[in-house]
Amino acid sequence: MPADPLPSWNKGAARTRLLDFVKRVTTDTSDFVPPRDRIAVFDNDGTLWPEQPNYIQFIFAFDRLKSLAQVNPDLKEAEPFRTVLEGGLTTVATLDADEIIEIIKATQSGMSTEQFSLIVAEWLETAKDPRFGRVYTDLVYQPMLELLDYLAAKDFKIFIVSGNGADFIRVFVEETYRIPPEQVVGSTSVVEFRVGNAGPVLMKMPKVEVLSDGPGKPEAIERFIGRRPIFALGNSDGDKEMLEWTAAGAGMRFVGLLHHTDPAREWAYDRDSKVGHLDKALKLARVQDWTVVDMAADWNIVFPFQRASAGT
Amino acid sequence: MPADPLPSWNKGAARTRLLDFVKRVTTDTSDFVPPRDRIAVFDNDGTLWPEQPNYIQFIFAFDRLKSLAQVNPDLKEAEPFRTVLEGGLTTVATLDADEIIEIIKATQSGMSTEQFSLIVAEWLETAKDPRFGRVYTDLVYQPMLELLDYLAAKDFKIFIVSGNGADFIRVFVEETYRIPPEQVVGSTSVVEFRVGNAGPVLMKMPKVEVLSDGPGKPEAIERFIGRRPIFALGNSDGDKEMLEWTAAGAGMRFVGLLHHTDPAREWAYDRDSKVGHLDKALKLARVQDWTVVDMAADWNIVFPFQRASAGT
Repeated sequence: MPADPLPSWNKGAARTRLLDFVKRVTTDTSDFVPPRDRIAVFDNDGTLWPEQPNYIQFIFAFDRLKSLAQVNPDLKEAEPFRTVLEGGLTTVATLDADEIIEIIKATQSGMSTEQFSLIVAEWLETAKDPRFGRVYTDLVYQPMLELLDYLAAKDFKIFIVSGNGADFIRVFVEETYRIPPEQVVGSTSVVEFRVGNAGPVLMKMPKVEVLSDGPGKPEAIERFIGRRPIFALGNSDGDKEMLEWTAAGAGMRFVGLLHHTDPAREWAYDRDSKVGHLDKALKLARVQDWTVVDMAADWNIVFPFQRASAGT
Repeated sequence: MPADPLPSWNKGAARTRLLDFVKRVTTDTSDFVPPRDRIAVFDNDGTLWPEQPNYIQFIFAFDRLKSLAQVNPDLKEAEPFRTVLEGGLTTVATLDADEIIEIIKATQSGMSTEQFSLIVAEWLETAKDPRFGRVYTDLVYQPMLELLDYLAAKDFKIFIVSGNGADFIRVFVEETYRIPPEQVVGSTSVVEFRVGNAGPVLMKMPKVEVLSDGPGKPEAIERFIGRRPIFALGNSDGDKEMLEWTAAGAGMRFVGLLHHTDPAREWAYDRDSKVGHLDKALKLARVQDWTVVDMAADWNIVFPFQRASAGT
């Protein structure tokens, strides 16, 4: 562990509170928490990497829909596919949850789990964000990578809790965040065990078990993890209940919200945004004295590739 | 780690294969597996502790049903409760899956997750197995405890994959098996996040999401863990698909079946038993050369409390 575990975090309340929390729960104070109870949960989209102008997983689904429509032109005739194929990626944001699920079912089922992982891996290696001209795994937040490493070094067990697909996130989570895939909690496709000539496979079926934002997050934490985190970080109203659940446990807690305030380096949005809507959680953060991370003020760089220009 | 990590295992093929497997995948051989991929899965009932004459969790449900019927006599009038309350514990084994779920819903919902954990913990501290006169957590298999410790010391990440309730197993798993609760995959109650005057709670609802034996086990491994184990141990046909799935991965694998052959010290049962039915998996074990652990022949003691009489 380097002398400063959080070099991309500017001096200020957020940084001080993070360091102070970790110090207290990991050293011999009245706030000490044994390693086995050091459970930390992070939202993914908008917390560890961008979610503007679209969820990266929706861009994947859109790209895959275009590929499938070339092979199967009938797709272009049916809704909601026609709207999206004709209108382009921006129309994805206008769809409702059921329509999104239709697209996920059409683009992410009918193959084995291993085939799906290969398709995602290939896409992540080639598809680029149009604004930054980078592959998406280059767009993880450098300050969050430092925080993940810092918590892991202090024996925290870190889980990602996302409304998006667990099997998509699991493909890159180990290399990108150094979090093992079994510590990703998210929406899942129903899979079916089949034994064919080449041995058993798990087939992805056109049925999605959605992890809903909001109350769905603490509910999924109970189901998949089975105990209450002592650390939680999110960025939207969809994370509010997960943060409330974490905050309400006995003993010292860290509860944080990332506020996107940085249009020059990333994006700025909160209560007027459909993706990453942030209003109620921000109000509650003020009432309950949660830590609000102001991207523009608290981070001296946002993405790892900005490191050289940060003057180090 | 002691000189002999498996003192309760007699010399023989099962012990030799276990030691050989662990040595090969953890040392510099062509079979080496990096620590992050050392995923091991164990069935619970009949593999780590007894399942005869009833699943221990069903005995808990039965005891709880009796308590509830004292407070709410109407329960005695409705089926399947009347059958069980009048007929006693042995009638639980005659119920079908839907009736069992009715009993679980009636006895294990309408309370917070924290209340439920306290109820289970109190029961585990007091209820005793009639044959052995011991609390149930004394009835874990000593050779399996040694194996769990040995695998953990060799950087395996061990998961329990059970058709019974995850929230029941999670109560004792840390103290008894030294496995963290988040590494238990099992059936779950639907929980509902509610914010009351005393803050947020997760309420257990009368709805069970069943992890079915058989194909349900590899399907749940995909959902909760997201990658294929390299080590699997079970004891019944309900574990067959989990073992097949593990066996079919690339590289070296350990796939084992515990065969209950020891009526003097524990129980003897296989294809004629309703609980722990073992026939197809045993045949496949012979075809695929899986390791069959013969309890009578391979274990010099079964339960930890037999240690003194084992002549050490």
